[in-house]
Amino acid sequence: GGVFVVPFKRCIHGIKKFAKEDKNRVIIFSLKVGFTILIVSLLVLCQSPYKLFGNDVVWCILTVASMFEYTVGDTFNKGVSRVIGCFLAGILAVAIDQAAIHSGPVAEPYIIGVGIFFFGALFTSILKLKPSMEPYGDGFRTILLTFCALVVSGYRVGHPLKTAVTRLYLISIGGLVAALVNILIFPIWAGEELHKELVEDFDSVADSLEECVKKYLEDDASDQPEFSKTVLDEFPDEPAYQKCRSALDSSKKLETLANSAKWEPPHGRFCHFLYPWSEYVKVGTVLRYCAYEVKALHGVLHSEIQPPHVLPTAFQSEIRKASHEAAELIRCLGKDIKDLKHTPHTTLQEKLHSSTEHLRHTTFSCSDSSTALSLAAFTSSESTAALSLATFTSLLIEFFSRLDHLAEADLK
Amino acid sequence: GGVFVVPFKRCIHGIKKFAKEDKNRVIIFSLKVGFTILIVSLLVLCQSPYKLFGNDVVWCILTVASMFEYTVGDTFNKGVSRVIGCFLAGILAVAIDQAAIHSGPVAEPYIIGVGIFFFGALFTSILKLKPSMEPYGDGFRTILLTFCALVVSGYRVGHPLKTAVTRLYLISIGGLVAALVNILIFPIWAGEELHKELVEDFDSVADSLEECVKKYLEDDASDQPEFSKTVLDEFPDEPAYQKCRSALDSSKKLETLANSAKWEPPHGRFCHFLYPWSEYVKVGTVLRYCAYEVKALHGVLHSEIQPPHVLPTAFQSEIRKASHEAAELIRCLGKDIKDLKHTPHTTLQEKLHSSTEHLRHTTFSCSDSSTALSLAAFTSSESTAALSLATFTSLLIEFFSRLDHLAEADLK
Repeated sequence: GGVFVVPFKRCIHGIKKFAKEDKNRVIIFSLKVGFTILIVSLLVLCQSPYKLFGNDVVWCILTVASMFEYTVGDTFNKGVSRVIGCFLAGILAVAIDQAAIHSGPVAEPYIIGVGIFFFGALFTSILKLKPSMEPYGDGFRTILLTFCALVVSGYRVGHPLKTAVTRLYLISIGGLVAALVNILIFPIWAGEELHKELVEDFDSVADSLEECVKKYLEDDASDQPEFSKTVLDEFPDEPAYQKCRSALDSSKKLETLANSAKWEPPHGRFCHFLYPWSEYVKVGTVLRYCAYEVKALHGVLHSEIQPPHVLPTAFQSEIRKASHEAAELIRCLGKDIKDLKHTPHTTLQEKLHSSTEHLRHTTFSCSDSSTALSLAAFTSSESTAALSLATFTSLLIEFFSRLDHLAEADLK
Repeated sequence: GGVFVVPFKRCIHGIKKFAKEDKNRVIIFSLKVGFTILIVSLLVLCQSPYKLFGNDVVWCILTVASMFEYTVGDTFNKGVSRVIGCFLAGILAVAIDQAAIHSGPVAEPYIIGVGIFFFGALFTSILKLKPSMEPYGDGFRTILLTFCALVVSGYRVGHPLKTAVTRLYLISIGGLVAALVNILIFPIWAGEELHKELVEDFDSVADSLEECVKKYLEDDASDQPEFSKTVLDEFPDEPAYQKCRSALDSSKKLETLANSAKWEPPHGRFCHFLYPWSEYVKVGTVLRYCAYEVKALHGVLHSEIQPPHVLPTAFQSEIRKASHEAAELIRCLGKDIKDLKHTPHTTLQEKLHSSTEHLRHTTFSCSDSSTALSLAAFTSSESTAALSLATFTSLLIEFFSRLDHLAEADLK
């Protein structure tokens, strides 16, 4: 046997190495799917369960194929709703079959036909008329299928109740196997993913703020590609902005993950029941409002109204200092979430406040007429450039003030 | 018979009336689903097809349940990819079964087990490793299910090829029935929906621009609810802004609809082949860049930096005039799309240009020191208020300049 053990070990090692490199744990997930359907197939490959269940085993495979999801929470969520749905569909199907049997052989097929038509239409309209049911569309098809198949085969095979009970057993077995494999073998937690996603969003907002400010201050105005050319190819030379865009689009993802995470038992670092996953979504919303401001800054950068060619250095250093502090604060807040800590960053916030105040004073105050840098003085010489600068600065200041809300939301 | 005809007619009339009121044609869709599964069930309810196909009819129901979609294009798209997928899965399953049969009775179950595990894992990893395959996830489950069920039952029933061919027939019948019902009975076209969606987006951007400007000019600063209170409950008192938000979120929807529309034959007003549906997505993208600017304007409205309590009337009328013209232009562009016309709106655009220039001059020019209204003069008295006004105005001007791109994209 030793001859086989060495290559086998090597193979396992190779798979392990590949799995480690693979960030999304896709390979693990795929092997889990393969393993689960193999277990279910054993019901046919072995002699004794096949004698018991026969070709109905397809229901078990159907359940696994339709409920096995990437994360544990999603699998539980889908599994529970599908098993309950199939159970209700089974009851309904048996009821229709019984009604048909008791109404005599002539009326039987008509009753079944009307039943299928009516309930098929009813199910579909419930799904479509309630937009909140949209995410369940997929499971809904499974239930509709279960219902039809049960009614139809109950009519032909003749023991509707027995058929339904056997299939319900098989659906339960499929659900149980899928749930156990998903939770016991390298589980992928939705909560963990949600946590990682939010922390990444913090970093990408901080990065894109710095990138945007850097571009605005350093680049020559003529270097910026025109709006019309870049609007469709999405600014490929600005990687941080790309990430920020994904943060803007992440609202749906965060919500889905939070919804799945609620179904998960306590695990790892999130070790108490009823962990407040919805808070993640709220922090994500506040963060997105900051990201919108970065988007607006980016809009000024690629605006038709170009910034001044040479920006007074006093402006430059003020803007750079304040935005650097802001990025620092965002990263600290993100790190807090990462470490599940809740520390107030009063010093950082105060530093940012004073920088903001200073920036505002430099840019917009006319009272101290000795500084030739103030916007009012600047305005007279270069009107459009001043317009660009005024917008950029005030959007920055607005961004900074939104950070306070973020820090507040973070603390909760 | 006449006794039954009257209530029947009334019933049909009632359904028709309800269907007309129902904007989303949900009821029609539901009745279509019911009708389709009824047709498929006839394969069991009638004697002769049942003798031919037996309990395999469940495959026909499965196909209908998994491919019947709201729009014609979606049904075609899913149907084709599913039938091809099931065909390939069938070939693979038969190949595995044949290989197992030829390797003798002892090795047979092992080969089948390894085959299921290996291909199940392979399919899943292909799906998950290519993000572009994500929308096909649902159909993928169907194919995985078909593959497993065919391998497993081919092993037990003994005629893998015959079983596979019968089921492929049934899948084709299901697909054909679903496609025919979907296209022949009150078809719901994805292209039509895409068209309507884009026109609505134009209107909602125009509405929300006017609403936002009106609120900024008219409301007392203290009336505006604070940012922190409203960020989570999404500004319920601003209906147009809500619609604009949905325009921002519509990118995915437009893309999906355009993708489905490509599968549809020429119909109604879109009566030539290869209708350029992707242009709709491009115009939608440019429109979204305008909507982002409205979002930024809305941010200024609910900003920490409050607008001046009393705004000079000259500013007010300039801003109101320009934004009214802009909204007008957007509505005209939307109406052009609605009527499938391509008329240049040179007059409107020129009017807007001159208003914009005037607004810029009034706000940002210091050279004509006789006007006490210019921002520079205003700045000295009320620094923060001027900041708010400068941002609002320059965002407006940026919005106006983006409209030119929109008009350009619209013409193509």
